[in-house]
Amino acid sequence: MADEPQIILGIDPGSRITGFGIIKIEGARREYMGSGCIRTEGTVFADKLKQIYDGVTEVITQYKPSLFAIEQCFVSKNVASTIKLAHARTAAIIAALNHNLEIGEYSPRQIKQSVAGYGNAEKVQVQHMVCTILKLNATPQADAADALAIAITHADILQSLVAMNYKELGIHGMSHSHYR
Amino acid sequence: MADEPQIILGIDPGSRITGFGIIKIEGARREYMGSGCIRTEGTVFADKLKQIYDGVTEVITQYKPSLFAIEQCFVSKNVASTIKLAHARTAAIIAALNHNLEIGEYSPRQIKQSVAGYGNAEKVQVQHMVCTILKLNATPQADAADALAIAITHADILQSLVAMNYKELGIHGMSHSHYR
Repeated sequence: MADEPQIILGIDPGSRITGFGIIKIEGARREYMGSGCIRTEGTVFADKLKQIYDGVTEVITQYKPSLFAIEQCFVSKNVASTIKLAHARTAAIIAALNHNLEIGEYSPRQIKQSVAGYGNAEKVQVQHMVCTILKLNATPQADAADALAIAITHADILQSLVAMNYKELGIHGMSHSHYR
Repeated sequence: MADEPQIILGIDPGSRITGFGIIKIEGARREYMGSGCIRTEGTVFADKLKQIYDGVTEVITQYKPSLFAIEQCFVSKNVASTIKLAHARTAAIIAALNHNLEIGEYSPRQIKQSVAGYGNAEKVQVQHMVCTILKLNATPQADAADALAIAITHADILQSLVAMNYKELGIHGMSHSHYR
């Protein structure tokens, strides 16, 4: 199953801008399929959540991913920001769950480690590596690039699980998800 | 419009137990229609969110409310708990938004003020008043009672807006929602 091509949707959630990135993977190959941003409008927060839900639903309908990965809830000093982020990411997660996609979740550190090789990498280094890995001529918008980085991380984790022959270890499903 | 009977769904969100309460209002009348709990199962958090979404969707399908109210995000000292709560309530909110329901949101203080008459009322006093207002013989389960209290609060706020002839004031829609 792991060697069959699969489509991964990565999401970088935010109440104002939610980045999305879609890649196709086949073994060690990573192919860029698309990326972009869902920019929310208006002043009513619930409207923004609906726009995120609808936007992610549209992306899922268009690209038909079989895998879904999202950034973990970042805990900032500003609790209000953290709460907004939690709402935004749940809107995206519910869209994925409504399409029977399991949820892979990664911390910023895991994403930097996976894409740039070390957990303290700068944002621009991660974006540069996204372009290199996916053979892109131009850097996508920042949130879209972050979403692609999340998708790449999911691909890498999946590949390493396959390399460990995780099925023989009796681990089924998304054992790499920390989203519990 | 305000004197036509309307059905309000109140939600007391939680990642383990989400209470729901449904009342019918007509002017100053409040009639109990139903209440209960969505108890989430399993250890995977995303599964719990899906259960909340599906549970709230089922309640909406069954009772066909035209109004929806939910408790504001309670910020506890434990940030992890706050984040979980934010996720749980978003799952419920997305279910409501997918049925074109506008979101009314109230703080615990507003709910206590509205139902028990003062913002520092004890939880049992609020539950007692819920039974009195809705003429219930037995107290519902705690989370269901809290959800009914939220629905009653929404009814009260709506009624006071009508009393203020809010349409003439040029206020449209859910102007009482603090959910921005």
